Amino acid sequence: MKKDTKGINVEKDEFSEWFTQLMIKADLADYTDVSGAIVFKPTAYAIWEKIKEETDKRFKKLGIENCYFPLFIPEKSLNKEQEHIKGFAPEVAWVTHAGETKLNERLAVRPTSEAIMYESYSKWIRSWRDLPLKLNQWNNVVRWEFKHPVPFLRTREFLWNEGHTVYATREEAEKEGDEIIKIYDDICREFLALPSLIGKKSDKEKFAGAVYTISMEFLMPNGKAIQGPDFHHDGQNFAKAYGIKFLNAQGKEEFAWQNTFAFTTRMLGVMFAVHSDSKGLILPPRVATNKIVIVPILFDDTKEKVLDKSRELERDLAKFGAVLDAREEYKPGFKFNEWELKGIPLRIEIGPKDLEKNSVVVVRRDNGEKEIVKINDLNKKVGVLLEDVQENLFKRAGKFLKDGIANASSMKDIKKTINDKKIALGPLCSSKSCEDNLKFESGGAKVLNIPFSQPSVLSKSKCIVCGKKADYFAYMGKSY
Amino acid sequence: MKKDTKGINVEKDEFSEWFTQLMIKADLADYTDVSGAIVFKPTAYAIWEKIKEETDKRFKKLGIENCYFPLFIPEKSLNKEQEHIKGFAPEVAWVTHAGETKLNERLAVRPTSEAIMYESYSKWIRSWRDLPLKLNQWNNVVRWEFKHPVPFLRTREFLWNEGHTVYATREEAEKEGDEIIKIYDDICREFLALPSLIGKKSDKEKFAGAVYTISMEFLMPNGKAIQGPDFHHDGQNFAKAYGIKFLNAQGKEEFAWQNTFAFTTRMLGVMFAVHSDSKGLILPPRVATNKIVIVPILFDDTKEKVLDKSRELERDLAKFGAVLDAREEYKPGFKFNEWELKGIPLRIEIGPKDLEKNSVVVVRRDNGEKEIVKINDLNKKVGVLLEDVQENLFKRAGKFLKDGIANASSMKDIKKTINDKKIALGPLCSSKSCEDNLKFESGGAKVLNIPFSQPSVLSKSKCIVCGKKADYFAYMGKSY
Repeated sequence: MKKDTKGINVEKDEFSEWFTQLMIKADLADYTDVSGAIVFKPTAYAIWEKIKEETDKRFKKLGIENCYFPLFIPEKSLNKEQEHIKGFAPEVAWVTHAGETKLNERLAVRPTSEAIMYESYSKWIRSWRDLPLKLNQWNNVVRWEFKHPVPFLRTREFLWNEGHTVYATREEAEKEGDEIIKIYDDICREFLALPSLIGKKSDKEKFAGAVYTISMEFLMPNGKAIQGPDFHHDGQNFAKAYGIKFLNAQGKEEFAWQNTFAFTTRMLGVMFAVHSDSKGLILPPRVATNKIVIVPILFDDTKEKVLDKSRELERDLAKFGAVLDAREEYKPGFKFNEWELKGIPLRIEIGPKDLEKNSVVVVRRDNGEKEIVKINDLNKKVGVLLEDVQENLFKRAGKFLKDGIANASSMKDIKKTINDKKIALGPLCSSKSCEDNLKFESGGAKVLNIPFSQPSVLSKSKCIVCGKKADYFAYMGKSY
Repeated sequence: MKKDTKGINVEKDEFSEWFTQLMIKADLADYTDVSGAIVFKPTAYAIWEKIKEETDKRFKKLGIENCYFPLFIPEKSLNKEQEHIKGFAPEVAWVTHAGETKLNERLAVRPTSEAIMYESYSKWIRSWRDLPLKLNQWNNVVRWEFKHPVPFLRTREFLWNEGHTVYATREEAEKEGDEIIKIYDDICREFLALPSLIGKKSDKEKFAGAVYTISMEFLMPNGKAIQGPDFHHDGQNFAKAYGIKFLNAQGKEEFAWQNTFAFTTRMLGVMFAVHSDSKGLILPPRVATNKIVIVPILFDDTKEKVLDKSRELERDLAKFGAVLDAREEYKPGFKFNEWELKGIPLRIEIGPKDLEKNSVVVVRRDNGEKEIVKINDLNKKVGVLLEDVQENLFKRAGKFLKDGIANASSMKDIKKTINDKKIALGPLCSSKSCEDNLKFESGGAKVLNIPFSQPSVLSKSKCIVCGKKADYFAYMGKSY
């Protein structure tokens, strides 16, 4: 227990309590009277807007268009694809009444929009000329999970993009997988400063209704893995369930090929958790609205001079979203702590002595390093430093992920890896019973995904669970 | 009934059927299996994104921040403000089950977010230092109206902004009304090319829970009025219901002063309806993603030359979102009709003879005027023409609105005005019973709003309904 009660009063090691305090004290989220649903406060929501903007720009280059489908899905539509409904039914929030009137049919609050979108697709698509159809929605979805909710990481309502594309051939559809994962990976690396493990989900863990799922997996500070953005190739499964057929160029009727893909607000939580420390939030500069805070050191006789210069700096650094903390009722030390808690990437301290030397002190949030910078060089220097912070966070997250992976060639190895709060990489066969046994014997580890690049020793490797020939090396671990 | 069956086959006079066909044939919306909920197709949704972007930019300048609150509102929260719940209860969609589990308490799908936001506000606001608090959401809301739904104009789910601000004093709060209405009016005029009637709602028609409502009213082609964006000053009504109190600078506890304001996707429907004609959609250039279509006139011997030039023009005019319709399976006349139906503001026709003269034919969608333009002047000329189209649509809409208002000084006048599909302007007293009688005796007219600028004859005028002294001149009409 640390002393300062305004700041976070536990170390990051006590992850669960630390994360909860971070949410509230860094002003990212708040709880509501609806269990599992949170308020996305402006700081966090602005980052989501940034992610949307950057992702959307890249989608548009691929010819993906935005649209909006209804929130409510009639029960009979949802029931058309058997695997899909099995996957989602336990978590659906049902609307049964409007005002005093009982509805004739229950309406699902969308857990995802396949069912309602594909009813429309089946009406809209007639010939190969209507393909490809590439639509996307940025919306809210509800999945009433009964597991313990955690802000951003597991909430009963969340925000996301859901892309739903339709192609005339399997080849075209599958090719899109690379394009979309590349976009998601860019956003995670370049903006959120987060590397990930990319691979195929096992059949057991893939999306309900998909032929296969490509996922990005992240490692959390508590040693649990968490699934991030994903891409599902649905083959013709939904096309058959919803009757999405087209006349090909030869005039023959065929079922269409489909994909879906999503990036959710969960990634905000992953980013907050991975980069931040016991002092509070650490934000990658590229997603921070306010990248700089200016804290003037005020004494009675030099106050006006220092404040004038501070205001001038605030204007000069406006393109970095610089904010000036000119409050006189708080001491500088108090302000330093508060802005560290809130994760502003750079702090500029300016006092009368600095002013005499025409310089300021710049302090990095990521590593606490201080530097004296001439005011004339400040604008340029700050740009360099912010890029440096961004890069350092990415490197640090890369090291954390790399150090968090251990090779495993036996169930004993797996258990040790889990115990060490790490992810295991080891050989498995593709049978569902081995996955079930893995979970049971390891105390909860599951297959996260199967990396595309497989080691050459695969051909000689045996499944960790059953000892028969391995089909692949997979990442395994406990997961959200 | 017109001949062409791909286009709209009724005149605009038959408004209801015309509007329905416009929605489907111009690819703006589609119906779904959920009655009253529509698909916002990409053309329409892109316009909504443009509106959001422009409005949001202006909100941010006022210091309004975006956030996101949960979709679901516990019944007991919704019930706290009596007028508010009375206004919304008949239209609330209720979630009663999650998966197989019956919930302990019904959850309202938000019809508006006062209830859930103000529960949080009451926790967050402690002192005058926390004020003003200016938050906004861009989200979806559900109001299960039992009136006949119409795409965009009256849908059971719609998209909007909901601004919710809190101030320490009534004066500051009320001042915001001008700022917000100015923004909404700018967006309507400058982008949607729509003038409106701005004024105060009568007590009977104001927002449920507000002290007063300022509304923007529009006239539809069928002579009905429709309410657009609005601003509500809530006084301390919600602050008292939800316990939003703060310590003022003197250390005394006070209730806060609040406003709410909204701009909804209904305005897309108003814009489509007012500007478009029997040939199809007409879009103001500033909101059209694709402002120009290039239709090459193709003959066997000159095809490649014309197509090459067309592609070059498409690149040159990329900043106007120019699209090239190079399909060879359709004749130019077919394409002209199709793009007129879809409302692209300018069409460029280019054939071998034009090419010889280094010119093209430019056709305006708003008035059908053709002009021969030298290719060298095209980029500049197109910019001028698009501004001209924008201005012409605004003027035309202004004339339509002006011509659609008639002075009324008796109930007979009102009836005639309604019969003529117009809005009446006349003197009324503020009693609720006179408003009730107005509706009954006129056959459905209600008070739309009360303009801020009142005529000098007011002091000598008598209420149309009861003959006693009039309190104001009001706009009256049938309304959506």
